[in-house]
Amino acid sequence: MSDPWFTEKQTPYCGLTMAVAERLFDQQSAFQRVEVFQTPEYGRVLTLDGCVMVTDRDEFVYHEMIAHPALLSHPSPRSVLIIGGGDGGSVREVCRHPEVERVDLVEIDPMVIDVSRKFFPALVSKLDDPRVTVTCMDGFEYLNDHKATYDVILTDSVDPVGEAAKLFSASFFEKVRTGLRPGGTAVFQSESFFYSGEVVGRVGEALGEMFKHAAPYLAYIPTYPSGVWSFTMASDRMDPARAEVLRRPDFLKDLKYFNPEVFRAAFALPNYMRAYLDHP
Amino acid sequence: MSDPWFTEKQTPYCGLTMAVAERLFDQQSAFQRVEVFQTPEYGRVLTLDGCVMVTDRDEFVYHEMIAHPALLSHPSPRSVLIIGGGDGGSVREVCRHPEVERVDLVEIDPMVIDVSRKFFPALVSKLDDPRVTVTCMDGFEYLNDHKATYDVILTDSVDPVGEAAKLFSASFFEKVRTGLRPGGTAVFQSESFFYSGEVVGRVGEALGEMFKHAAPYLAYIPTYPSGVWSFTMASDRMDPARAEVLRRPDFLKDLKYFNPEVFRAAFALPNYMRAYLDHP
Repeated sequence: MSDPWFTEKQTPYCGLTMAVAERLFDQQSAFQRVEVFQTPEYGRVLTLDGCVMVTDRDEFVYHEMIAHPALLSHPSPRSVLIIGGGDGGSVREVCRHPEVERVDLVEIDPMVIDVSRKFFPALVSKLDDPRVTVTCMDGFEYLNDHKATYDVILTDSVDPVGEAAKLFSASFFEKVRTGLRPGGTAVFQSESFFYSGEVVGRVGEALGEMFKHAAPYLAYIPTYPSGVWSFTMASDRMDPARAEVLRRPDFLKDLKYFNPEVFRAAFALPNYMRAYLDHP
Repeated sequence: MSDPWFTEKQTPYCGLTMAVAERLFDQQSAFQRVEVFQTPEYGRVLTLDGCVMVTDRDEFVYHEMIAHPALLSHPSPRSVLIIGGGDGGSVREVCRHPEVERVDLVEIDPMVIDVSRKFFPALVSKLDDPRVTVTCMDGFEYLNDHKATYDVILTDSVDPVGEAAKLFSASFFEKVRTGLRPGGTAVFQSESFFYSGEVVGRVGEALGEMFKHAAPYLAYIPTYPSGVWSFTMASDRMDPARAEVLRRPDFLKDLKYFNPEVFRAAFALPNYMRAYLDHP
């Protein structure tokens, strides 16, 4: 093993480093470099262009927190669209909800799906659920043909660089809005306030102009930059920062992160984060 | 520069790595190796035995969150003891409270104080406040001679290894309890649930047997292991998990992390953390 440690430079000047037992996969797809590592601390780790996307050990935080706040605060989430998320983790969480009749996953890079099927069995466990349709294409284009179709749309994207930069644009947010049914909810992964506060601020500002309500919320993800990640939820029906958990399904006891108290607490922002929303 | 990056192995298999512009200080004290780095990402960084203690950029999180929850939920915090905390950051936050008449800082290692005075002017700004007395000795022994003296005691310790291990013992918690006046509040830094959940569980269990109430709360500290840190608050007067912010002093607007909503939210624990409290 020539380099037994993997390091992600989360900024030019700092990063996360972890021991690697084995590099299981390393290929360039049409969109990005896809690698899978076996690690003693985090189990299997998927990286895209050198950035950690999921690890066996802490993926539950991201996937529970992108899915359940929107689905449990929507009165009847029957149809759900996930843009990105080819690893399958968001699909798995959405499929826990018995109200959901249709889940469309639109991932631009088929290699992410293939690699996840091969190396991350716990993530892809619901990709073959009969309610799920997987489409490999650009989410932006997909939405051109799917107006007023979804109760919930989750944007489970990579960082806003290269091809994914457009997923952080006002024109993309507007496309998502048109894909929602009346009263629908959209959630966007929106980066780290600590390292990219201006990005979170801009996302919140753009969504706030387009929807009646938009609010960021937080989750503790150890392998993501700064360890605290943001999602921004937008809706015309309710203010996410005051949203209620409308149902208490049985599966709540099986979750490892989400609970109704965490849902409410996730919207409480430290002062330095609030400042980015006041002056993005 | 032979090694322009500093790496803290937060576990044997993963860590935080950051670029170093200059190593400003490196000496072995009677207790530990004390180093100070100038870094482009985090400004000045103090490490003890290779573990990051404070950085210019994110120290506000730890210090605001160890001090203000206890002080603002106590009806009359006139006398405060800080055990450890030789960098001065906790003293600075405690001194914001006009109710406080006496702050005793008991730090075992004078080199930590000297180095902080030299390299961290923003941290030590209140060490010379007339209400503050600095004593260099073992906190355990200090408490033998200070019974029923304090309204609030903050244990701002390093990790539970070596000399500091005893600060995580039931006999130390009992010493702290005897140092409190009736109705007093104690706060202990209590490590990361993610990497050391069993430590947080044991601290909570021991304190729960000794005080009427004990509860952990969380703060997002990017340079600490896992990025999410715990403190445990204990009191006979009130249940910390239901405590109220009793005053809204003017200085709240100057804080960068703490606000009353964050205070309440900090006690909401994700399920995997709750599990350590149920079965420590």
